Amino acid sequence: MSVISFENPPIIKSFASIAGQKESKGPLKGLFDVTLNDDLAGKESFEKAESEMVKTVVNLAFQKADFMATDIDYLIGGDLLNQCSASTFGVRDLKVPFLGIYGACSTMAQGIVLSSVLATSSYAKNVACFASSHFCAAEKQFRYPLEYGGQRAKTCQWTVTGAGSLVVSTFGNGVKIKSASVGKICDLGITDSNNMGAAMAPAATRTLVDFFNETGKDPNEYDLIVTGDLAYEGVKLTRELAAQEGVFLGKNYTDCGLIIYDREKQDVHAGGSGCGCSAVVLTSFILPRMLAGVYKKVIFVGTGALMSPTTVLQKESIPGIAHLVELEY
Amino acid sequence: MSVISFENPPIIKSFASIAGQKESKGPLKGLFDVTLNDDLAGKESFEKAESEMVKTVVNLAFQKADFMATDIDYLIGGDLLNQCSASTFGVRDLKVPFLGIYGACSTMAQGIVLSSVLATSSYAKNVACFASSHFCAAEKQFRYPLEYGGQRAKTCQWTVTGAGSLVVSTFGNGVKIKSASVGKICDLGITDSNNMGAAMAPAATRTLVDFFNETGKDPNEYDLIVTGDLAYEGVKLTRELAAQEGVFLGKNYTDCGLIIYDREKQDVHAGGSGCGCSAVVLTSFILPRMLAGVYKKVIFVGTGALMSPTTVLQKESIPGIAHLVELEY
Repeated sequence: MSVISFENPPIIKSFASIAGQKESKGPLKGLFDVTLNDDLAGKESFEKAESEMVKTVVNLAFQKADFMATDIDYLIGGDLLNQCSASTFGVRDLKVPFLGIYGACSTMAQGIVLSSVLATSSYAKNVACFASSHFCAAEKQFRYPLEYGGQRAKTCQWTVTGAGSLVVSTFGNGVKIKSASVGKICDLGITDSNNMGAAMAPAATRTLVDFFNETGKDPNEYDLIVTGDLAYEGVKLTRELAAQEGVFLGKNYTDCGLIIYDREKQDVHAGGSGCGCSAVVLTSFILPRMLAGVYKKVIFVGTGALMSPTTVLQKESIPGIAHLVELEY
Repeated sequence: MSVISFENPPIIKSFASIAGQKESKGPLKGLFDVTLNDDLAGKESFEKAESEMVKTVVNLAFQKADFMATDIDYLIGGDLLNQCSASTFGVRDLKVPFLGIYGACSTMAQGIVLSSVLATSSYAKNVACFASSHFCAAEKQFRYPLEYGGQRAKTCQWTVTGAGSLVVSTFGNGVKIKSASVGKICDLGITDSNNMGAAMAPAATRTLVDFFNETGKDPNEYDLIVTGDLAYEGVKLTRELAAQEGVFLGKNYTDCGLIIYDREKQDVHAGGSGCGCSAVVLTSFILPRMLAGVYKKVIFVGTGALMSPTTVLQKESIPGIAHLVELEY
């Protein structure tokens, strides 16, 4: 019972996105609900700015669903900062029962899986989830402070400054969450922390191949199969690894890390990453296009690299994970 | 619908505990399934030692339930290390669908809540959860490296070196999980990171008072009401704050942070803390005593301080959270 097939699919009642300056100058320009004028969002630190983004986007998703915080049964979220503090400080004033999660860049998908499980139980009607990341806070924490001006490897990804939030409800109109799949940790021994795409590709492959094998569905049934955030390196590998197992992801397969930036013009190397990447691409681009009839059937796979700066220094390899959500409108 | 009352209560099919040297010399001496001979567990770093504890205790809980990893539908866990790496590295070889959570020291309770939700859904039959902490790894990350030899404030708590794991099943014999409650974040503006008990007490109070008010139950019905880990300072405050709201926690109220160490003799100041504290006390002391008939009805409340070293340096206050589980045998 690896794939959870929802008998009465919950729906995405509302969604909201916020993004930084660089993201607002990329291919998704004009699609975000809120755009930051400066990456500090008027706060004294990048960490506080990230919390502010979380606060804004969660409240906006509530408003769009015509909900008060008291209408939300559970709130689920996470981020990349140590001790998930962007999330907890972002939502601490809301007084909604809160479940903190950590799935690195798979957080948005993990949140949707858990929200769907709760919204299809008798314990909840409306569950909100969110994920965020901030380039400057993440660089400081995972690599070097910006002031250091370190060179980036060509296989590196660029952490998205942004956050996305959505409300999953038992009933109503909206994009349906047809099924979901919780990923298994995969670690093929990749140790290059400048190539997260390669580290996460085996996990993305495992989750996708298992899904298609278990359900008997065909990748060509879907208008969009999107991972996030494997970017250029990881997408190539995932396509190859899946093909080796007989699953051909086809022309509708792409990645949130490739959608969010213009790789030619924006100097992001392999593409976008960070919890905020798939969260923002989902809530500003994929879901609106589903409602507009561009995509009917979508597979959204959040992918996370489960290392820390300490484990990298201790020469550990990088475990990956990928959670899948099947969407339909 | 704040308290989840399970119509068909899931059961705790098995549980296991592992603890460090200091813990094995305290009041729970002889009760742990596994005791570390040295706090490095034969590894090169404290972080790797913590992962090793996780691996040991999760596998042991599976074995005690007569389960292989393939019998477990979901595995849920977390810890205090940055990016929850003790957990992910501890279970990366298991190939069980994994959900990473972050609730600071409330992690064990949060894991039981989510395990119960899944085990009472049609999506899972057996769900395992775990939590861990390691004194040396936590000191290095949250305070100072041990070599610095810093003085500790009297209100400080001592992070437990230990881990606990359990398997929640839809059917079977064992301690029943009658109900559960997901906490709301509470932040009363406490900024003293040397007094986590005070920071978490408002959240513990909120969850406990809401539970008793909503269910109409009386604290005196319970053989044990146990928070974890508020320790000396937090317990005093929780008792006071609850009484101010008309809920008298009574003589059966205590805290995992007070159970794990002998405060007089073990120089732990306010008592124990860390994700491992409540996890270890639950799996080595509370659950065995329930099976032995000492306690019939128990309320177990995991409490977490949701700050990070960065938020403390940025002079933020410390948000707390508390998740509740009602147990019966």
